[in-house]
Amino acid sequence: MPGLFVVLEGGDGAGKSTQLTRLAAWLREAGHEVVVTYEPGDTRLGATIRTLVLDQSSGDITPRAEALLYAADKAQHVYEVVRPALEAGKVVVCDRYVDSMIAYQAAGRSQDADEIRGLADWATGALVPDLTVVLDVPVERALGEKTDLDRMESAGADFHARVRSYFLDLASQAPARYLVLQGREDRDAIEAAIRARVETLLP
Amino acid sequence: MPGLFVVLEGGDGAGKSTQLTRLAAWLREAGHEVVVTYEPGDTRLGATIRTLVLDQSSGDITPRAEALLYAADKAQHVYEVVRPALEAGKVVVCDRYVDSMIAYQAAGRSQDADEIRGLADWATGALVPDLTVVLDVPVERALGEKTDLDRMESAGADFHARVRSYFLDLASQAPARYLVLQGREDRDAIEAAIRARVETLLP
Repeated sequence: MPGLFVVLEGGDGAGKSTQLTRLAAWLREAGHEVVVTYEPGDTRLGATIRTLVLDQSSGDITPRAEALLYAADKAQHVYEVVRPALEAGKVVVCDRYVDSMIAYQAAGRSQDADEIRGLADWATGALVPDLTVVLDVPVERALGEKTDLDRMESAGADFHARVRSYFLDLASQAPARYLVLQGREDRDAIEAAIRARVETLLP
Repeated sequence: MPGLFVVLEGGDGAGKSTQLTRLAAWLREAGHEVVVTYEPGDTRLGATIRTLVLDQSSGDITPRAEALLYAADKAQHVYEVVRPALEAGKVVVCDRYVDSMIAYQAAGRSQDADEIRGLADWATGALVPDLTVVLDVPVERALGEKTDLDRMESAGADFHARVRSYFLDLASQAPARYLVLQGREDRDAIEAAIRARVETLLP
């Protein structure tokens, strides 16, 4: 597809949204058409699914149902938002994608990683990002500042430590498609590092 | 598992709920503990999913997202309702199950049947009913009486004809686990035929 698909991954509080906004602004100034989006939730269907999986009142959702709901969100998001934009030659900048699903569902919820990846690939038609930027921060920092935790955030420090190391494992397996940055670094330095890498991928 | 799992399948208007009610009453009179349930929707999570997939206002849901939502409903339903009841030795009588998902999603929506079955099996932990009763009715009858059609009902006569013949195919492949009855027959005759077959399976 003619477009470029860039994903930002990392725990909560890693600074993904700041960097997403800055990257999109820089790309637009350079004359690119940019679609800024996120998972889960950035379709009408996805917004309801997001509420279901994150709302504390949903209670005891079995891990397989949770994984299937995330996959449904992805299927609709790729179909409705990501793929049409890439086909039209746009740059898609997305907050979380398949790696988050595998990290949270497999490493976090202790489900089989190959099964979860199979689900995600079926949902997305195996659409792989051109670049995934992992913003790595210690778990204490990621959750330390928040008080009103949602279902995923309140899953505990062990859960989030497994999620964190899973992102780093994925990145080390395919360095050509990943950029790992320390989320504790200066925001401007992170922004510059992301720009430098994205620049090499632009048409 | 010590319980007995009986499923009723067939198009809308085939008389499933009448027969479900009669079967449950007869089983209870005979002293069995019976759980009457249905898919999709018979859990708190499932009720929201049911609204999403059936409500006309959901609009253009991609077939993979639809299949994943049905699978999520099944995962939660088996986990929360069906498996605990079977483990406790109860008779579970269920309106629709995995065959409906495959019939509507694969035959109806023209998705790959093996992929849909794989999803359903993953969702349910491959829990197979002891008996599936298929109530077969012509498509015209199934939809002819209704006016306020939901998303699935309004998918057209071809769709429902494919669904109907898919149920019959499944039944012919595993006759020991299926009972096919003509939904046009007298209700009492259908009731008696179901009883006779269920009686052979009771503990």
